[in-house]
Amino acid sequence: MQLTNALLTDLYQLTQAQAYFINGRTELEGSFYMHFRANPFNGGYSVACGMQQIVEFLTDFVFTDEDIGYLASLSTSSGAKMFNDDFLAYLGAMRLELDIDAVPEGSLVFPYEPIVRVTGPILQAQIIETPLLNQVGFQTLIATRAARICDVAEGPVAEFGLRRAQGPAGGIYASRAAMIGGCASTSNVLAGRLFNVPVSGTHAHSWVMAYSDELEAFRAYAQAEPDGCILLVDTYDTIQGVQNAIIVGHEMEGRGQRLFGIRIDSGDLAWLSIRARSLLDEAGLDYVKIVGSNDLDEYTIKSLHDQGAAFDSWGVGTRLATAYETPALAAVYKLSAYRNDSRSPWQPTLKTTEQIEKSTLPGVLDVRRYYDSNGVMAGDMIYRLDYAVKDETIVDPHDEMRQKRLPANSFKTLLQPLARKGQIVWPEVSVLDAQANCKTSLASLDPTCRRFLNPHSYPVGLEPGLFDMRAQLRRKAKGLSPD
Amino acid sequence: MQLTNALLTDLYQLTQAQAYFINGRTELEGSFYMHFRANPFNGGYSVACGMQQIVEFLTDFVFTDEDIGYLASLSTSSGAKMFNDDFLAYLGAMRLELDIDAVPEGSLVFPYEPIVRVTGPILQAQIIETPLLNQVGFQTLIATRAARICDVAEGPVAEFGLRRAQGPAGGIYASRAAMIGGCASTSNVLAGRLFNVPVSGTHAHSWVMAYSDELEAFRAYAQAEPDGCILLVDTYDTIQGVQNAIIVGHEMEGRGQRLFGIRIDSGDLAWLSIRARSLLDEAGLDYVKIVGSNDLDEYTIKSLHDQGAAFDSWGVGTRLATAYETPALAAVYKLSAYRNDSRSPWQPTLKTTEQIEKSTLPGVLDVRRYYDSNGVMAGDMIYRLDYAVKDETIVDPHDEMRQKRLPANSFKTLLQPLARKGQIVWPEVSVLDAQANCKTSLASLDPTCRRFLNPHSYPVGLEPGLFDMRAQLRRKAKGLSPD
Repeated sequence: MQLTNALLTDLYQLTQAQAYFINGRTELEGSFYMHFRANPFNGGYSVACGMQQIVEFLTDFVFTDEDIGYLASLSTSSGAKMFNDDFLAYLGAMRLELDIDAVPEGSLVFPYEPIVRVTGPILQAQIIETPLLNQVGFQTLIATRAARICDVAEGPVAEFGLRRAQGPAGGIYASRAAMIGGCASTSNVLAGRLFNVPVSGTHAHSWVMAYSDELEAFRAYAQAEPDGCILLVDTYDTIQGVQNAIIVGHEMEGRGQRLFGIRIDSGDLAWLSIRARSLLDEAGLDYVKIVGSNDLDEYTIKSLHDQGAAFDSWGVGTRLATAYETPALAAVYKLSAYRNDSRSPWQPTLKTTEQIEKSTLPGVLDVRRYYDSNGVMAGDMIYRLDYAVKDETIVDPHDEMRQKRLPANSFKTLLQPLARKGQIVWPEVSVLDAQANCKTSLASLDPTCRRFLNPHSYPVGLEPGLFDMRAQLRRKAKGLSPD
Repeated sequence: MQLTNALLTDLYQLTQAQAYFINGRTELEGSFYMHFRANPFNGGYSVACGMQQIVEFLTDFVFTDEDIGYLASLSTSSGAKMFNDDFLAYLGAMRLELDIDAVPEGSLVFPYEPIVRVTGPILQAQIIETPLLNQVGFQTLIATRAARICDVAEGPVAEFGLRRAQGPAGGIYASRAAMIGGCASTSNVLAGRLFNVPVSGTHAHSWVMAYSDELEAFRAYAQAEPDGCILLVDTYDTIQGVQNAIIVGHEMEGRGQRLFGIRIDSGDLAWLSIRARSLLDEAGLDYVKIVGSNDLDEYTIKSLHDQGAAFDSWGVGTRLATAYETPALAAVYKLSAYRNDSRSPWQPTLKTTEQIEKSTLPGVLDVRRYYDSNGVMAGDMIYRLDYAVKDETIVDPHDEMRQKRLPANSFKTLLQPLARKGQIVWPEVSVLDAQANCKTSLASLDPTCRRFLNPHSYPVGLEPGLFDMRAQLRRKAKGLSPD
């Protein structure tokens, strides 16, 4: 199965595309922006991730003869052909001509601001909406969770969620995003190969269960894998397991080797790790590390530290790889301007709906991030590309009275070119470089925005002219008189 | 990217495999069983799903030269090679010889009982643990959620979660599992092609936003796509949208056509659907269907029905495709018996750990499902294949005092052959046939086990001899005297 298949989209993108085709509007252009409505985990920030997979999806994007044949086989409920031959011929010959701009991977991003912008033929921009939301939404979610976990871990975090991930690619891209968010390694061997990141792991409970006793199992493992050996001590009784590990640790010393660590995967991790640490220390094995695992996340790890638990590093699986509690980013991709063809002026447009949080912004949009004199992030301004920024004030999108003046001329532009006329122009950045970008970005965010409980809300606002234009368009859409 | 790649596993499966190889234990055999610890969503049942993907994974399973080359490139923290050449040569030449048995897709399954059994060389059984848990765990989760949603929907449910799914395969397999759980169609075109299931969808908000007014947009859509036309009415103001849809519906009547439906995607769905229904009816458009969507799940759909909401069908996305609230099944794969080679007797084994819910069952296991004289499921018995069932009583795994006598000779065996000596023997079953199996199975479950709030616990217990053997082995593992 090819994950970059052009059919990896919602059917309505294709029925709409046909409707544009039939209406003679194949030259109609749109400007779409992807944003999300809330930071996941009730957090104060999100980490952008998954842009490299947009690149992979766009490279050589084409509806193959097999794809077209499948679409030709579909019928409506009345038995008529769902797609007509002229449209399918058009689709088969179509090559993407889109301009795409995106936030670099590992950057911090916040609700309501554009993190990807797609401009060009509306029919094409719609077809890639679904895979784009899928990849960027999911990886942003996981990178954010990983950043939160690594922020409190005080030691290396290994991601090992593949077995509980949502499908194989759920595991593979969760591993990628977890690395960008700050993990030190993954257990996922295929992710290690695909993304050139460190892999880690030792043995499972079954190793111990396949021997008649635990000590014999530990001895056999240490003999076979003395280098970086970590023994899992909780198959039967954790303290007894630690005592058996100590025996093996002493035997390894006799062979000029060192036991690397032990892992505890059940029971009260605070109590057991403190007991294990003193048993190891009393036995002269103060160099042996203790690894913790068992449905961990940022909250349990922080709580273990607060209790003085004696862990040196962590394995984190399910709650990282599935983003337990918030397993989807509320990400959307909305039309904000259109024009009849590439020579016409842009018409800003918006959606009002019945819910204010589902309403959108008009215009061809970009974002500036401002910094204070200490290099700390001061606020983000969403503005229209075709409208000069006159003053450096932002207005809260939901409260006109809430405004903030940003430090003049101290900004960078968030969206960077990813594709021009369908050709990729995105610089190839390794996962470890994106991880470094995430680390640098987090260091420039005020610590009050990083805390877990009621984090300080980072200022993101509209350029005042954009705020006013949105108000006018909303009144018009709702059939009210102009302001 | 190939999702059936042999490297799609945890590194510790390979380091362990090397340790078995170095210890000369490549003939060591194990019997593993996959089970889960709790029904997701605090529900009363789960729907087994994903077995076909085990088949795909096993077919032509091999470590390619490229895979071996990657493994040869890995080093430990001390800089030594992680895998030795002899082991890699063994791995490259290895062909799976496993016997696998599994519950047919769409069957109901319950906590603690084996749903997949893998028997054969322990080194091989470990390598497939991770992809097996990944696929069966995830698809079982989603099929279960879909069954719950369809159980209360009183109308067709379209799955459209791809954009919010956890990665592309998260979307593809979520669509597959959602169909098996009972959905009528999916928006996911690639899933439609891969699994030969119905696809559905019409247009998005952007269609409306790319016209200067909504009525013009609706007219253009109905002209282009009159067959099965569903108009999305909430881009600006839902009631105004319904009124515009009515105008278009009347125009379609003038052309001898019929508007199929409208969709409401925001606001108070109960209030708006009732208002929309009366406006349509008053306009003589009583045949126009109303489709509801907007972060729906079984609870919101049930609540809408309870309020008399006027929906005919549903689109369900995020909360189905990601199994929001319980985004991972607590599925595990545990060794329950081992033998030095295929000629030796099985040694039952178990894990006790610090947490009773993480302890496991010993022996080569199977499950019988008993039925009462009305064909209603009476209880499931977990038993050892190498131990004759003497009486048809089951014992609650966590409470010896809780026993139940099952109707004699009225059972079927749950686990069915999937592979023998590595060769697939699983019958190919279509997604729609698996859906039918799910529907039949649900009809034979007592309704009290299907309710959402504190569902009746379906009886799953141990054959008394298995209960006793487990007790003895636990005492031994904990170093206590025999009972």
